[in-house]
Amino acid sequence: MNNNCIFCRIIAGEIPAAKLYEDEDMIIIRDINPMAKVHLLLIPKEHYADIIEMTEAQSVTLARCLKKLSTLTDTLGLAEGFRLVSNKGQNGRQSVGHLHIHIIGGEKLSENMA
Amino acid sequence: MNNNCIFCRIIAGEIPAAKLYEDEDMIIIRDINPMAKVHLLLIPKEHYADIIEMTEAQSVTLARCLKKLSTLTDTLGLAEGFRLVSNKGQNGRQSVGHLHIHIIGGEKLSENMA
Repeated sequence: MNNNCIFCRIIAGEIPAAKLYEDEDMIIIRDINPMAKVHLLLIPKEHYADIIEMTEAQSVTLARCLKKLSTLTDTLGLAEGFRLVSNKGQNGRQSVGHLHIHIIGGEKLSENMA
Repeated sequence: MNNNCIFCRIIAGEIPAAKLYEDEDMIIIRDINPMAKVHLLLIPKEHYADIIEMTEAQSVTLARCLKKLSTLTDTLGLAEGFRLVSNKGQNGRQSVGHLHIHIIGGEKLSENMA
């Protein structure tokens, strides 16, 4: 755990947030600035900044998170489709230095992803 | 290989496309409708539509692809950051039914991802 990381503190329960899903690998919470009807964040519990810092073991955990997510999408209101987004660094407008995946849907999204 | 899939046909060499990177797991090509200065597609060689269809073995391969991508980003012009996007279904505006990850960067992207 990184004490300066808001996501680590949410995972640890130090900052309150409604966890829509939680298991040993990850949490899923709502984005506080939603860009669509459904805008969630999948956050692995281990702290690492991005795929550049990600170890091989962490990549396998991330794969497991994506597989689990695939079983949850109907429950999360995403049966008609969704967009997964992960931002890295300045050009990507990464906002928190703890890897996370935006899960966006609940309506037809725009074509533009850039 | 799915003979009706444009990405399978590119992977097989039946449809010409400049492969910026290729290994046993994936290819990286340029998106033909770029939305930013750098807009690439990471395409796993195995044909499956999306994370819902993805097997556990395919998820581990996808993790390996992401790890490899993390070693290539500087070469690909993405040192200042990037955005990874994967669209699923109608609401996500998925265009090809073979899982692929958009790699977008080369300039500061917009805040809106939806």
